[in-house]
Amino acid sequence: MQHLSPHDVMTMFLALATLLGCAKLAAELMQKIGQPPVLGEISVGIFLGPTVLGHYRPHAYETLFPTTGPMPIVLETVTTLGVVFFLLTAGLEIDLRSIFRQGKSALLVSIFGVAFPFASGVLAASAFPKYMGAEAGANPLIFALFVGTALSISALPVIAKILMDLNLLRTEMGTVIISSAMFDDLVGWILFSFVLGMMHPSADGSIGSGVKHTIVLVLLFVGITLTLGRWLIDKILPVLQAHTTWPGGVLGFIFTLTMLGAAFTEYAGIHAVFGAFVVGIAVGESTHLRQRTSQHIHQIVTNVFAPFFFASIGLRTNFVSNFHLGLTVTVIGVACVGKLLGAGWGARLGGMDPTSSLAVGLAMNARGAMEIILGILAMQAGLIRENMFVAMVIMALFTSLVSAPAIHFLIRRRRKLTLKDTVTAKLFLPNLAAKTRLGALREMCEVAAEAVSNAPERLLRLVSEREHVLPSGWENELAVPHARVNGLARPLVVVAKSEGIDFDARDGKPARLIIMILTGDNQSQHDLLGDASELFSRKEAVEQAVNANSFLELVAALNAPVR
Amino acid sequence: MQHLSPHDVMTMFLALATLLGCAKLAAELMQKIGQPPVLGEISVGIFLGPTVLGHYRPHAYETLFPTTGPMPIVLETVTTLGVVFFLLTAGLEIDLRSIFRQGKSALLVSIFGVAFPFASGVLAASAFPKYMGAEAGANPLIFALFVGTALSISALPVIAKILMDLNLLRTEMGTVIISSAMFDDLVGWILFSFVLGMMHPSADGSIGSGVKHTIVLVLLFVGITLTLGRWLIDKILPVLQAHTTWPGGVLGFIFTLTMLGAAFTEYAGIHAVFGAFVVGIAVGESTHLRQRTSQHIHQIVTNVFAPFFFASIGLRTNFVSNFHLGLTVTVIGVACVGKLLGAGWGARLGGMDPTSSLAVGLAMNARGAMEIILGILAMQAGLIRENMFVAMVIMALFTSLVSAPAIHFLIRRRRKLTLKDTVTAKLFLPNLAAKTRLGALREMCEVAAEAVSNAPERLLRLVSEREHVLPSGWENELAVPHARVNGLARPLVVVAKSEGIDFDARDGKPARLIIMILTGDNQSQHDLLGDASELFSRKEAVEQAVNANSFLELVAALNAPVR
Repeated sequence: MQHLSPHDVMTMFLALATLLGCAKLAAELMQKIGQPPVLGEISVGIFLGPTVLGHYRPHAYETLFPTTGPMPIVLETVTTLGVVFFLLTAGLEIDLRSIFRQGKSALLVSIFGVAFPFASGVLAASAFPKYMGAEAGANPLIFALFVGTALSISALPVIAKILMDLNLLRTEMGTVIISSAMFDDLVGWILFSFVLGMMHPSADGSIGSGVKHTIVLVLLFVGITLTLGRWLIDKILPVLQAHTTWPGGVLGFIFTLTMLGAAFTEYAGIHAVFGAFVVGIAVGESTHLRQRTSQHIHQIVTNVFAPFFFASIGLRTNFVSNFHLGLTVTVIGVACVGKLLGAGWGARLGGMDPTSSLAVGLAMNARGAMEIILGILAMQAGLIRENMFVAMVIMALFTSLVSAPAIHFLIRRRRKLTLKDTVTAKLFLPNLAAKTRLGALREMCEVAAEAVSNAPERLLRLVSEREHVLPSGWENELAVPHARVNGLARPLVVVAKSEGIDFDARDGKPARLIIMILTGDNQSQHDLLGDASELFSRKEAVEQAVNANSFLELVAALNAPVR
Repeated sequence: MQHLSPHDVMTMFLALATLLGCAKLAAELMQKIGQPPVLGEISVGIFLGPTVLGHYRPHAYETLFPTTGPMPIVLETVTTLGVVFFLLTAGLEIDLRSIFRQGKSALLVSIFGVAFPFASGVLAASAFPKYMGAEAGANPLIFALFVGTALSISALPVIAKILMDLNLLRTEMGTVIISSAMFDDLVGWILFSFVLGMMHPSADGSIGSGVKHTIVLVLLFVGITLTLGRWLIDKILPVLQAHTTWPGGVLGFIFTLTMLGAAFTEYAGIHAVFGAFVVGIAVGESTHLRQRTSQHIHQIVTNVFAPFFFASIGLRTNFVSNFHLGLTVTVIGVACVGKLLGAGWGARLGGMDPTSSLAVGLAMNARGAMEIILGILAMQAGLIRENMFVAMVIMALFTSLVSAPAIHFLIRRRRKLTLKDTVTAKLFLPNLAAKTRLGALREMCEVAAEAVSNAPERLLRLVSEREHVLPSGWENELAVPHARVNGLARPLVVVAKSEGIDFDARDGKPARLIIMILTGDNQSQHDLLGDASELFSRKEAVEQAVNANSFLELVAALNAPVR
């Protein structure tokens, strides 16, 4: 029986720490320049893999990621867990009801958005299988279906992030896009499960019966899990929440189910990720699943386990020596044309104007993790060559990278303003001298006026007038005085901490945190007030800001997640 | 390069799902009968391992946990991650300052509580090395030191749980016990790191220089991590919280550090868990670490990853064929006598009365995960035989199992009453008919009176009198009318949902959730009111209870964790 030696254990933790640390760093940098973090995680893997580190420092590479001994199995175990758990969270976020609730537009965008890239992928792959990277001896029909499928799945998490950043998520266009992307995910995976099933010939060597077996098992699994399973889960969750330790019992239940689903789909002849995904959907549908439970899963999985997987993609092959320009351009071209045309036309038929339709097409065009997972499976199954895998990864990176700036350019939506981005160290008053409401407002208006070379009296008059109409004391010891100031070039946010000043709050408590918002336009004011109300709905959030002893800690307190 | 075949992946998920599902089930059952959940996780592993399943159904056992091929490495990878992350959370919970803040008692309990069992372990092991399960050829000095160390570490999480259940955690005795247990953990691990270091002879075959090397590296690591490292982490956390996505950036940082620490201690010649533990302490010391961040880590690690490890303990050996009654009884005897005498005498010298001192000894006597981890390492290093490992696991289970009932018997502390344990389906009124405060109280008193065959008028008079003195409207649309009713044998809690009835709340809002608490004694009333105030401090908790459509959902809403 093989064992891990102390040296293996050391290498394991060193390799995992390197992958995670570098991946998170790159992800945060991507985030800073407004790009999806997963792009950073994938790129850093390419850097750590055979492409760069393995090429220029082969010795260091071999020490960190040995290709002999037990280490490849160790890494594959961790990345397999990572991707299976990632698909669980992806499934949890899918809302079956909202897909069906959407009208004609979503349906058309979904169907056209899958059908067009699928058809163009199948056509291109059947016409030029060798050029498109088919492995010698791969079944041409299976290969064509694979390429079609791989080009038709959109990247739900990337799309959701882009819409959120562009302030489009709650618009009608946003809902249509998200519903269609969810539907695409579902259809794409079912298509792919068939392709995978076709790759496993049955015992007598014929493709037919193996496929039939897989298709029957997968359809049964999806059908039963999403109906009877969903119903059962919805009945079991409240029992667990009432009679087991919370959230321990529920977490154990969800992860056990996920791994059972993963084992079953692997048994049926398709990949474990599909089982985890379907179980995730079934669990996520339950109204009894509490947000705190899914938050625990989401945060640890997306921030610790998924990065292991995404960073490991780059370890699988050399992205320079296997790079084929023509093939890559072709894959990108076919993928983009198919998706833009399909989803865009669907939106147009659904009654959207041409610009919005193009924006829908651009959003749906973003690809991501799914294509890459499919690519890895196809490469392992001997269906595609490494140059096709590289082309697919680059296609996924490229389409995601282009999506947000293109939509932004097209419909010029302002990014939502947040308090965190607006506050400045100069406008933070950790110790307000004033003891009265008017005194506090005056003190704050003075620093604000100084920052924009304006007259403090004018600001004070505007804020006081507003205060007179509607006192600005909110709940939880927070006051948010605000005013529109004509001619103000950029929004000003003054944050002050006080011992307690009466701002006529509904709960009668004096304010210990005062956030003054001065804007030149209504939209910014709306954004900033909305951000304040969202951030400070919980008492602890105000507490955290009041306890901030430096500007840095204040920014940290304002940097809470949306949910 | 080895790869996992689809069959391996299937086996992996089936094995992990079986381990997790069974472990959680057993843990919850243990919890129900008032025992530490970890006992269930370990027992279930013994059942699934060679002892029971492998003995009676060898074929099923070999299918689920194959001993050939890549599966042993896969399982070891997952359980190693599990135990390393578990030690991270154990470290996060240690509070260095509170250890030093405690007075003479804690110091004496700590020192005596380590010294006595250590000395008795060393004595017994030196006198009868073979009987005590030393592996043939094991260095007798190292073996004696190992046994001493293994007997002296208390089980911090088990002890904390026992104190919490017995309502002792916030008492003076509780603080002394917890501080001493933390200190024990720390000292025990440092001792063990020396023992482990001594096991690795240096290149020239002499034990001396290898030990020196390890000791210097470990001391440097602990010293630097807990001073400079701690200071740096405290500076870096606010920066991460201000400038990276939250909690993603912080989580990535903590897990990367943990794995680096694990890799370093493994390099230094001791086990990865020690590095994770020390990093956990350094991170946990930072005042900037937010509770929500550590909650994410704590919940997923203790409920998903740690059970993999604890359940896998039973897979390591056959607990029946390696069971040696005499040895097991000796180990239990030496462990208990040393700890009870040491910790108890320490408490007595610190000024506690004899009964409390014995209770302190009994609490400190609980062993757990640490002994077992040490045992596994010692077995892998060829220091102890399997029968000693089995004896150590049984000793850990036995001492934990005995601790709570013994303390309970000794000082007869009442378990804290909770709303969840007191509510009954009959006393849940999902639709209150009354629209006024008096009407609501009358309606609720009527069902309460019926349940105990009492006169409703009497209850109503008592509750109304109390209501008259102090209106029972709390914040967040909750009202908690209550009264002491002489002669009431057991506490009554009536829960009612209403459209909104004015109960004179401080925030002026009408109550939608009304919880009436009637008790015969002051202590129960204090417990139940305290539980209500803790549970419903957050608005969402009230919301959840108001939305409960069945008694089951109400119990689920009352079953929130303490923190």
